Amino acid sequence: MASSEFRPLDEKSLIEYIKATPRLLDLLGEKLEALTVEEVGDGNLNFVYIVVSATGSVVIKQALPYVRCIGESWPMTKERAYFEALALKEHGHLCPEHVPEVYHFDRIMSLIAMRYLKPPHIILRKGLIAGIEYPLLAEHVSEYMAKTLFSTSLLYNSTAVHKKAVAEFCGNMELCRLTEQVVFSDPYKVSQYNRWTSPYLDHDAEAIRADNTLKLEVAELKSMFCERAQALIHGDLHTGSIMVTTDSTQVIDPEFAFYGPMGFDIGAFLGNLILAFFAQDGHASEANDRKLYKQWILRTIEDTWNLFENKFTTLWNDNKDGNGEAYLMDIYNNPELQQLVQKKYMNDLFHDTLGFGAAKMIRRIVGVAHVVDFESIADPGKRAYCEHRALEFAKILMKGRRGFQNINQVVSAIHEIPV
Amino acid sequence: MASSEFRPLDEKSLIEYIKATPRLLDLLGEKLEALTVEEVGDGNLNFVYIVVSATGSVVIKQALPYVRCIGESWPMTKERAYFEALALKEHGHLCPEHVPEVYHFDRIMSLIAMRYLKPPHIILRKGLIAGIEYPLLAEHVSEYMAKTLFSTSLLYNSTAVHKKAVAEFCGNMELCRLTEQVVFSDPYKVSQYNRWTSPYLDHDAEAIRADNTLKLEVAELKSMFCERAQALIHGDLHTGSIMVTTDSTQVIDPEFAFYGPMGFDIGAFLGNLILAFFAQDGHASEANDRKLYKQWILRTIEDTWNLFENKFTTLWNDNKDGNGEAYLMDIYNNPELQQLVQKKYMNDLFHDTLGFGAAKMIRRIVGVAHVVDFESIADPGKRAYCEHRALEFAKILMKGRRGFQNINQVVSAIHEIPV
Repeated sequence: MASSEFRPLDEKSLIEYIKATPRLLDLLGEKLEALTVEEVGDGNLNFVYIVVSATGSVVIKQALPYVRCIGESWPMTKERAYFEALALKEHGHLCPEHVPEVYHFDRIMSLIAMRYLKPPHIILRKGLIAGIEYPLLAEHVSEYMAKTLFSTSLLYNSTAVHKKAVAEFCGNMELCRLTEQVVFSDPYKVSQYNRWTSPYLDHDAEAIRADNTLKLEVAELKSMFCERAQALIHGDLHTGSIMVTTDSTQVIDPEFAFYGPMGFDIGAFLGNLILAFFAQDGHASEANDRKLYKQWILRTIEDTWNLFENKFTTLWNDNKDGNGEAYLMDIYNNPELQQLVQKKYMNDLFHDTLGFGAAKMIRRIVGVAHVVDFESIADPGKRAYCEHRALEFAKILMKGRRGFQNINQVVSAIHEIPV
Repeated sequence: MASSEFRPLDEKSLIEYIKATPRLLDLLGEKLEALTVEEVGDGNLNFVYIVVSATGSVVIKQALPYVRCIGESWPMTKERAYFEALALKEHGHLCPEHVPEVYHFDRIMSLIAMRYLKPPHIILRKGLIAGIEYPLLAEHVSEYMAKTLFSTSLLYNSTAVHKKAVAEFCGNMELCRLTEQVVFSDPYKVSQYNRWTSPYLDHDAEAIRADNTLKLEVAELKSMFCERAQALIHGDLHTGSIMVTTDSTQVIDPEFAFYGPMGFDIGAFLGNLILAFFAQDGHASEANDRKLYKQWILRTIEDTWNLFENKFTTLWNDNKDGNGEAYLMDIYNNPELQQLVQKKYMNDLFHDTLGFGAAKMIRRIVGVAHVVDFESIADPGKRAYCEHRALEFAKILMKGRRGFQNINQVVSAIHEIPV
């Protein structure tokens, strides 16, 4: 169905929409027997419906023209659904194993119909809170990041392809602007939307607003976020944007996608794993002290970066004679030089990753949008203790990121945060 | 006149075009008395006509779909005229004192009609070869660069304005690609278009193609050129893109304009002044040893950067409560922090400038397009001597740029190049 104008759907009107849309009828069966519709949007922005019939299933996501978790007082273009669909298709093409298929997109309705990730798929963040190990997580996420980031960069594409795609995604400006505000600005100033575990963290929040060195670093990261079109990034790759089972890992919700710095995606994932690590003490019980689970999280952090680095440089080596215009083979024409160039590239990317990861951690503790990892710790004193340690580490990471040579050193530094 | 399709003009058909174009008739007088048309395009790309009538004058520039200095074998989109007109208008709006007015633009004909810069205006490069001092040059060029670069950056504009303009100028991809090739790639590899003063500089050219450290540095600069949308840059701000008298300075030919790194413009200008400096020994005669003139060039290099830095930070201070979203006043809210932030920004920009300046010098000695500063030195041995010293300095500058604290140190390093 080609809708003529936007209207927000509910459970009932969604069924009418399905009935009028051949592609969806194909998926669900013409007669729509035993149809169930469940609204499950627990994210900050959108409405999400799981639709199951006797013969098929689909997830339908609709963007409304405001930020759901704030309300109509915070308008936000529903055109974000267009960029989400575009990114899902592009990243899905590059890494179909870890991105759900898009069945149908309706730009006027800001509506995406995509593959339903059936149980036991759950949001990774919930799995981390429950203390569940995902033995393939590092392998899968590093694969997704390596493939999507490498293949949308100038290491793989010509300038012509790159600039055209950069121009298109400049259209997702409002979502970039939201990130600029909530990640790089609000936590460092007084803002009506900021909140933290008060009164415990009052001093911590104030210290961030008074930290000149931190503000100098975050300015550099913000500039890179605003100016550097390095690759088509997901733009919001935290542990709430990934659905998992023990053998499946699916990346969803790329509505913040645009051409930005690769380190923003890698940092989002690693930073949220570090938050999950520091939250574990709040979830420990007599039955489960979470010590082994904390070790698994740290191993996953190490593995993710190391596997990513390996996969990314392998893609680079495999495509060095391709269309990528950044490092022409006629110039970078000896093994010593190739190694030198890759080492510098990966080293810079590592430091960007740590900086962005730290920024993502800070904003989840003293900014507008918090994470369930901490929010689910009922005792505010205990929660504040976990958050405080995470915040201390994030500040060390952002200020000292250029001093870290490898991910092992980062994990060692996590261990050194005072109890 | 709205042309329906593109056709290359010559002196004769240009007059027909003028007769059919009301805006041009306004400028030149209805009767076109005593009309003279002179083709003066001595640049590498376009055809340029000076049209003078009894009552008015105009310069008419037409882009043809290939690179003029190479011929039809090197195709080049004539859409570049659209971006040139756009940049002339935008930069002209920001700095009318140093940018000629656009009277008329015909996109189909790739034709720009603009103010004729009357004699004694000459191309700055020719003035530098002739040994003419321009006492206001540093003042004027620094003013032009500070106003155009500051006012098209995120220091002045919102993300919304910035991303929209970035997207538009992504369309000038072919010209960006030409720069990528001739500045950042060809000089570092064997290329059919490369040339140098042979056999004198055979070893120099070979040494560049074998210099791993230099190639590592130029890769970083190329990435910045391709990925970083910092401001609307001119894109080709060498001394051949500036017309001067002793009291007027006019910047022309921004057909390479796009959102790129500011240092590329500043570096182009300073790098070409350094080339002019090293060429002076080839122009010295018994009547004029050029010693005082060389001192003037070095002073102009120093003054340009220092004045630029001053004007740029003044604009920043004057607009710190404006729409610019890079450094919000609520965050950068104390004088110490503001100073820290500006110092870091200007220091980074200085190092970018030196890197790009060095790249522009190197490409003019061993790449496809040379400069008359050297080409006009008839004795090839003497020319090669001048070029060799310039090349040695450019390599030092590119590799050691982060070690320079200020422009005086750069000038001192110029003095230290062995005779």
